[in-house]
Amino acid sequence: MATAGKVIKCRAAVAWEPTAPLMMEEIEVAPSQEGEIQIKVVATGVCHTDLYHLFEGKDKCGFPSVLGHEGAGVVESVGPGVTDFKPGDKAIPLFLSQCGECKFCKCPKTNLCDRNNRTIFHIIFHPLTVINQIAVAKIDDDAPLDRVCLLGCSISTGYGAAVNTAGVIPGSVCAVFGLGAVGLAAVMGCKNAGASHIFAVDINEQIFEKAKIFGATDFLNPKAYNKPISEVLSEMTSGGVDFSLECVGNTEVMRTALESCVKVWGVCVLVGWTNVKDISARPIQLISGKTWKRSLFGGFKSKDSLTKLVLKARTLLQNWLIDYMTGKIKLDEFITHKMSLEQVNNAVNLMKTGQWNIFSLTSFCRIL
Amino acid sequence: MATAGKVIKCRAAVAWEPTAPLMMEEIEVAPSQEGEIQIKVVATGVCHTDLYHLFEGKDKCGFPSVLGHEGAGVVESVGPGVTDFKPGDKAIPLFLSQCGECKFCKCPKTNLCDRNNRTIFHIIFHPLTVINQIAVAKIDDDAPLDRVCLLGCSISTGYGAAVNTAGVIPGSVCAVFGLGAVGLAAVMGCKNAGASHIFAVDINEQIFEKAKIFGATDFLNPKAYNKPISEVLSEMTSGGVDFSLECVGNTEVMRTALESCVKVWGVCVLVGWTNVKDISARPIQLISGKTWKRSLFGGFKSKDSLTKLVLKARTLLQNWLIDYMTGKIKLDEFITHKMSLEQVNNAVNLMKTGQWNIFSLTSFCRIL
Repeated sequence: MATAGKVIKCRAAVAWEPTAPLMMEEIEVAPSQEGEIQIKVVATGVCHTDLYHLFEGKDKCGFPSVLGHEGAGVVESVGPGVTDFKPGDKAIPLFLSQCGECKFCKCPKTNLCDRNNRTIFHIIFHPLTVINQIAVAKIDDDAPLDRVCLLGCSISTGYGAAVNTAGVIPGSVCAVFGLGAVGLAAVMGCKNAGASHIFAVDINEQIFEKAKIFGATDFLNPKAYNKPISEVLSEMTSGGVDFSLECVGNTEVMRTALESCVKVWGVCVLVGWTNVKDISARPIQLISGKTWKRSLFGGFKSKDSLTKLVLKARTLLQNWLIDYMTGKIKLDEFITHKMSLEQVNNAVNLMKTGQWNIFSLTSFCRIL
Repeated sequence: MATAGKVIKCRAAVAWEPTAPLMMEEIEVAPSQEGEIQIKVVATGVCHTDLYHLFEGKDKCGFPSVLGHEGAGVVESVGPGVTDFKPGDKAIPLFLSQCGECKFCKCPKTNLCDRNNRTIFHIIFHPLTVINQIAVAKIDDDAPLDRVCLLGCSISTGYGAAVNTAGVIPGSVCAVFGLGAVGLAAVMGCKNAGASHIFAVDINEQIFEKAKIFGATDFLNPKAYNKPISEVLSEMTSGGVDFSLECVGNTEVMRTALESCVKVWGVCVLVGWTNVKDISARPIQLISGKTWKRSLFGGFKSKDSLTKLVLKARTLLQNWLIDYMTGKIKLDEFITHKMSLEQVNNAVNLMKTGQWNIFSLTSFCRIL
């Protein structure tokens, strides 16, 4: 295309310092280098992890930076040596790369990649981005970008945490702590894996109705009890749940989620992101045979799996529909707002004040 | 035998209060009830966990109590309904029962037993004890009781943590933190599982020579470095060890052991006993794919496995001998002192002041 090999100016939402509003600014996008592609970002979700970087993160790459990591777009141009993409392809940028050649990519036990570069994480509140092809998944030409963008983080993360990392089995009893996009997707994963009971736990009871749509069977507000919610769950389940998923990113909830598991075979998966404080537990929690593990991007090998997941998600959702609903369940169900990129600070404020669930920002590319 | 069905008086080492010396006192032993057997304890080891109960434990069954949990003896008499034993059988009491009928005993993933009774833990500094047959392993008639008693806790715990719980694989790099009986047995387990490098980590360098006999290849004293030993290990192993085993029972060492593992497939097994403080770690330690798990009694199904282990340990040790030694390696290697039960407080003091490694107390039964 006409932009190939050229420096392009465009407007992006730039974070200059912690807690300050993002600033819409003109920035220059370098041409693609060896192995890189330019992607015109069409839509992007806003994730709590973006807020983490703005308000809590101490382990990140600093300021100024362009946030956003849950997007979908169209390939604008490709650099030398790019084999996987051509201009016009639809694509989802990945915050976990998959080079396919390192020792981790070749290991079926992990979805980490030795070539992963954390700067990938900060790129998508921006209409045009340049990424190495190892960190981009190709998707169907007819995929709706303003919905499948959510597969770039939240839905894959929550759904995969249940079906891949936890390995939820038919007939099992599950608890999902925190009902944002990740938690709702985890509920859906538990449901599709055949869980018989799915406890949805949140201090915001307004979200319970939506959790029910995704498959939750029981609903608990920890503030409604005078004892720890782990004790409540233990009493309701004869000793604890088989699988618990922490989808908040709060170290106290991570402890509670472990304590809520049944001994011997209980599995607690940490899904929410935080790395500011320690996670802690009494040794007896592990002595009793429980497993405490972490899921990153749902355990999916990112590049390969996401391409498949765009198809698979539809199929699963359709099947789930047939079994449990009279209407249609779509990715739409996860979306509460649609805004333009210029409204990004409104989106951040809605998230901060808990008035949101999940939404996608549509960023119409305006190359200057 | 003549004692069957009668109350028997004998002398035992009784703990009356925390930190106070044990008192040799005459106590009455009740006759065996349904399913119970009386065992004449011939020899017992002294384990750090006994000190834990005396000096640290806040989660135990209180005072007065009779400590000791690592013994071997001869069946004196059996109560009604006992099917697994007859008088004269050699036996090892178990601190983990195996009823064979509960949901946990039937589950191959665990060695816990739903009928386990923690009072089993406090019984063996005593020449005669009464235990339900579900918590006793039958052993060979020719087993040397003053050595195989150590299989009742330390050696099974350390050895099994390496071969069962960690699942050490050939060619892997291991680190064992703490070189008491449990740690040395873990070293032996790593060696027999085919580890290519076994780092032995302890602040007492005097024990390194013995660790070498059991298979350790590299030796680290954390006090000899100006940086965390996890960093030292990471530099020496290109990112961390494949398997680490904490054999101290110290929550800070448990954290270090996790931090010493390589990301993605590193497995850290907590073997040392403590439940007074929390274990803690930065979430990134689990996010990176490491596994943090606990081993109890080496993951062995206690009653079945111990009977086999008495034979297996000999075979393994003999094979190991052929491969690595010109002389004989026996259970004897673990034993540093032999004392009578009357000298139990000397044994406790040796352990407290770090002048011991492992030893067995020989308690000649003196029924009054």
